[in-house]
Amino acid sequence: MARWGGRARPAMQVPSPSVREAASMYGTAVAVFLVILVAALQGSAPAESPFPFHIPLDPEGTLELSWNVSYAQETVYFQLLVRELKAGVLFGMSDRGELENADLVVLWTDRDGAYFGDAWSDQKGQVHLDSQQDYQLLRAQRTPEGLYLLFKRPFGTCDPNDYLIEDGTVHLVYGFLEEPLRSLEAINTSSLRTGLQRVQLLKPSIPQPALPADTRTMEIRAPDVLIPGQQTTYWCYVTELPDGFPRHHIVMAFYYPEEAGLAFGGPGSSRFLRLEVHYHNPLVITGRRDSSGIRLYYTAALRRFDAGIMELGLAYTPVMAIPPQETAFVLTGYCTDKCTQLALPASGIHIFASQLHTHLTGRKVVTVLARDGRETEIVNRDNHYSPHFQEIRMLKKVVSVYPGDVLITSCTYNTEDRRLATVGGFGILEEMCVNYVHYYPQTQLELCKSAVDPGFLHKYFRLVNRFNSEEVCTCPQASVPEQFASVPWNSFNREVLKALYGFAPISMHCNRSSAVRFQGEWNRQPLPEIVSRLEEPTPHCPASQAQSPAGPTVLNIDGGKG
Amino acid sequence: MARWGGRARPAMQVPSPSVREAASMYGTAVAVFLVILVAALQGSAPAESPFPFHIPLDPEGTLELSWNVSYAQETVYFQLLVRELKAGVLFGMSDRGELENADLVVLWTDRDGAYFGDAWSDQKGQVHLDSQQDYQLLRAQRTPEGLYLLFKRPFGTCDPNDYLIEDGTVHLVYGFLEEPLRSLEAINTSSLRTGLQRVQLLKPSIPQPALPADTRTMEIRAPDVLIPGQQTTYWCYVTELPDGFPRHHIVMAFYYPEEAGLAFGGPGSSRFLRLEVHYHNPLVITGRRDSSGIRLYYTAALRRFDAGIMELGLAYTPVMAIPPQETAFVLTGYCTDKCTQLALPASGIHIFASQLHTHLTGRKVVTVLARDGRETEIVNRDNHYSPHFQEIRMLKKVVSVYPGDVLITSCTYNTEDRRLATVGGFGILEEMCVNYVHYYPQTQLELCKSAVDPGFLHKYFRLVNRFNSEEVCTCPQASVPEQFASVPWNSFNREVLKALYGFAPISMHCNRSSAVRFQGEWNRQPLPEIVSRLEEPTPHCPASQAQSPAGPTVLNIDGGKG
Repeated sequence: MARWGGRARPAMQVPSPSVREAASMYGTAVAVFLVILVAALQGSAPAESPFPFHIPLDPEGTLELSWNVSYAQETVYFQLLVRELKAGVLFGMSDRGELENADLVVLWTDRDGAYFGDAWSDQKGQVHLDSQQDYQLLRAQRTPEGLYLLFKRPFGTCDPNDYLIEDGTVHLVYGFLEEPLRSLEAINTSSLRTGLQRVQLLKPSIPQPALPADTRTMEIRAPDVLIPGQQTTYWCYVTELPDGFPRHHIVMAFYYPEEAGLAFGGPGSSRFLRLEVHYHNPLVITGRRDSSGIRLYYTAALRRFDAGIMELGLAYTPVMAIPPQETAFVLTGYCTDKCTQLALPASGIHIFASQLHTHLTGRKVVTVLARDGRETEIVNRDNHYSPHFQEIRMLKKVVSVYPGDVLITSCTYNTEDRRLATVGGFGILEEMCVNYVHYYPQTQLELCKSAVDPGFLHKYFRLVNRFNSEEVCTCPQASVPEQFASVPWNSFNREVLKALYGFAPISMHCNRSSAVRFQGEWNRQPLPEIVSRLEEPTPHCPASQAQSPAGPTVLNIDGGKG
Repeated sequence: MARWGGRARPAMQVPSPSVREAASMYGTAVAVFLVILVAALQGSAPAESPFPFHIPLDPEGTLELSWNVSYAQETVYFQLLVRELKAGVLFGMSDRGELENADLVVLWTDRDGAYFGDAWSDQKGQVHLDSQQDYQLLRAQRTPEGLYLLFKRPFGTCDPNDYLIEDGTVHLVYGFLEEPLRSLEAINTSSLRTGLQRVQLLKPSIPQPALPADTRTMEIRAPDVLIPGQQTTYWCYVTELPDGFPRHHIVMAFYYPEEAGLAFGGPGSSRFLRLEVHYHNPLVITGRRDSSGIRLYYTAALRRFDAGIMELGLAYTPVMAIPPQETAFVLTGYCTDKCTQLALPASGIHIFASQLHTHLTGRKVVTVLARDGRETEIVNRDNHYSPHFQEIRMLKKVVSVYPGDVLITSCTYNTEDRRLATVGGFGILEEMCVNYVHYYPQTQLELCKSAVDPGFLHKYFRLVNRFNSEEVCTCPQASVPEQFASVPWNSFNREVLKALYGFAPISMHCNRSSAVRFQGEWNRQPLPEIVSRLEEPTPHCPASQAQSPAGPTVLNIDGGKG
């Protein structure tokens, strides 16, 4: 989380010098260069700063995407820069970054011409032209940098072959066509050089708050570290505030609202700052050094509210487990009315940002606010959550939570590749279901999480014993993970575990920052009763499909060499 | 089942004299009569016998529907006769005959004109014009009998507001508009005189087999019975075959295939025939007499095969139960591979007709054939099953079943109006899940049904005791219905019962006509394992939506009196 803001950056995956290095490797390839005329110019991009967001797609930086979002039109405007064009490129979106069942836009050439079309790939990776053309080409331009393609797509198209662009993570996919094709149907993505990149496509359109005049900055950086030549490194560095550093408000790391800041310094506050950098080095490049870090913008002119961070979801305990070979198993953690009643001020708290968190099997995360038994609002949702892409995200709408409200955090897991149950815990092969919410004013409540009552889980293990001829170890010395490991995962034991989690009372963790629980009985608490659920919003279908071309757009080509 | 065939008849609901009587009651009302020109004639109806099926919709016979089915076009052609037209009529289809969430065609008038449009009603009964016009008016014609409207609709339209016309029962709905309206949106079905009629809309297009030259008929009839002045009467009459009546084949009651007939008469066969007539008298008319009956067509020239009837589904036992307040609870009965292996000939049996059966809470019934763990074929399915409309239906395709095959019969129940569990049994307030299949050649196997193992159900009751603070009566003297009656129906007990039925071993009833089981162990049998399920077919969307009008069709009107 070294640099976060309204702008998506390559972060540390691709140190910028390598872009040019890698690009030169492909410079010798014979490429078809296109001089493309403006093919179609329907509608127009938003006026101000046309493409505030950008990201390279492939590690070499051959493809670079810039984009903007029009919430009024419910449309994303894309600008794709193709630096080294051979016979064409594929770009698109899919559920989790796979090239099968992907929603694609394809630029391709046959011997006669070049074409731009909305396409999709089936479950075998075979590409088909889409009967409904929802990607609309606005401009194609050749520059010394490469070919720029400007096109737009509505969030939802109501075409079953199309991806629905939602809040949260979007898995962008790309592929390179090396040879001209007779037709788009000749493409099978499995035979191409392809890849994926994760982004939050629907960035919030929150104006950047003005920084106070006295804003100072402080950088916490890696001290010119030699990046290990391995795929994944977690690297921690602790620094200390100067003696007598008074209380300040951090006002930008991600952006804080104008009325709040994160307090640090001063009496009663820790003097230690810990930076954790996660190096993702997919090409296993060696000898590269790094001084990445975080720059804090802070002010001595304390704002009206201290901001706080609260942890919602499941307690880290093995009693919450996912059977193996599940494709979409849901675990849910609660922040109950009893806890919010005790811990929140009458005027409420205001959540403005959120970071969702699971380990490797997490696929979706959502936190919903419920009041008087009715779900009223989504706090944050990611239907394409990836544990490899965790961001603190500004909420598009601040969510206010009052005493007596309930916060329900549900995570969906895929354990198809596991042989044994996956239990809750700290280990990377164990699971978590957490939403770190950023809010103000700060309260004493730091942790509002739950887990199933252990007594009821014990009843479950005994039931499994009785219903199945196999013996499940329920002896007192067996740990919960050992007990889960001995469950024979037939349909009955799976369904009953699901039913147990949806019925059994819970243990609440309603804890202060000091890790001390709020006063009260927190064991064997009833599950919050929800009488009315929020319905999934039905996506708007674009009104003017008649405007869209019926087939691919033909581009004029001047064949030649680079 | 007095008269069944390719032709849908009013059966006994409406003795024909009342049609005219009732119609005259409305003759005095001032009605808007329409002289309607041919408004649109797109496509054409099938050539031969344009409307082989017909049925009156309302008890008075004011509305009469005729129809035909084009399986090639996947389209139903409707002809609606409106005998006494006032300001308009509604006609359509809905899940179970309700006027809310109905798919409608509306003929309505304002002060200026008359209109025909595809519409739908929302969950409050409010009518809306459909954005996609899938009912297409072909002809409108005034005759002395009344106004004839000819229109067509594809089986599936891919419009979420439209009803999908499937095999099985269709609930037709109708309503009468008494006053001209400013617009169709002014209609709320709750304020109209409305009703429903059940039909099998997609009648099979099976050619009627030629009857043998020596065919004789025998009528078993009610002896001029005075129909009781009450809504529902079941009336039974037993008749006896003459002494020495030799073996014959019944070849038409419903139609038997040319190679088979139902044997009766001769040595070893019962001499008694029992007729059961079910009088449905919704207007509680008194003083009407009836001599309805069944005419058997039989031949002494025995056909190649004796036909048989086999009962599939659930055994009649309270161990199979449905919790109260369920909207769609599924119970499943099996005819296992072990039973078919023992009882069926190597050359298989051929099912040509089927009668589905449940009691009052039944909503859907389906029987699926599985071979080697894979579902291969639907034997019969009714997604809009009504216990008030039970027919023996010819299958559109004969289904062959071989030794080792499995037949899986599932029923979906709605117990929203029940306070206690509904257990299996003979009583009208108990439930059944049965498919009586008609097949040839006849075998010894008459009953191939299952129920959950009683020992596992006993484990369930003990589990309920342990997980819930409430005491469920599991004392030895309590009957299974008493035990079910004492279960507190929380989510856990519901889900675990579902899981139990999907997991626990079964008791098989693999019985001969003599009610003696086939030799073998039939208790604690494993549930058949199904590794691959049949997918619901995705409905074809009509290719030529561009042909459909974008709005209602305007009709020319000549205002006047009848």
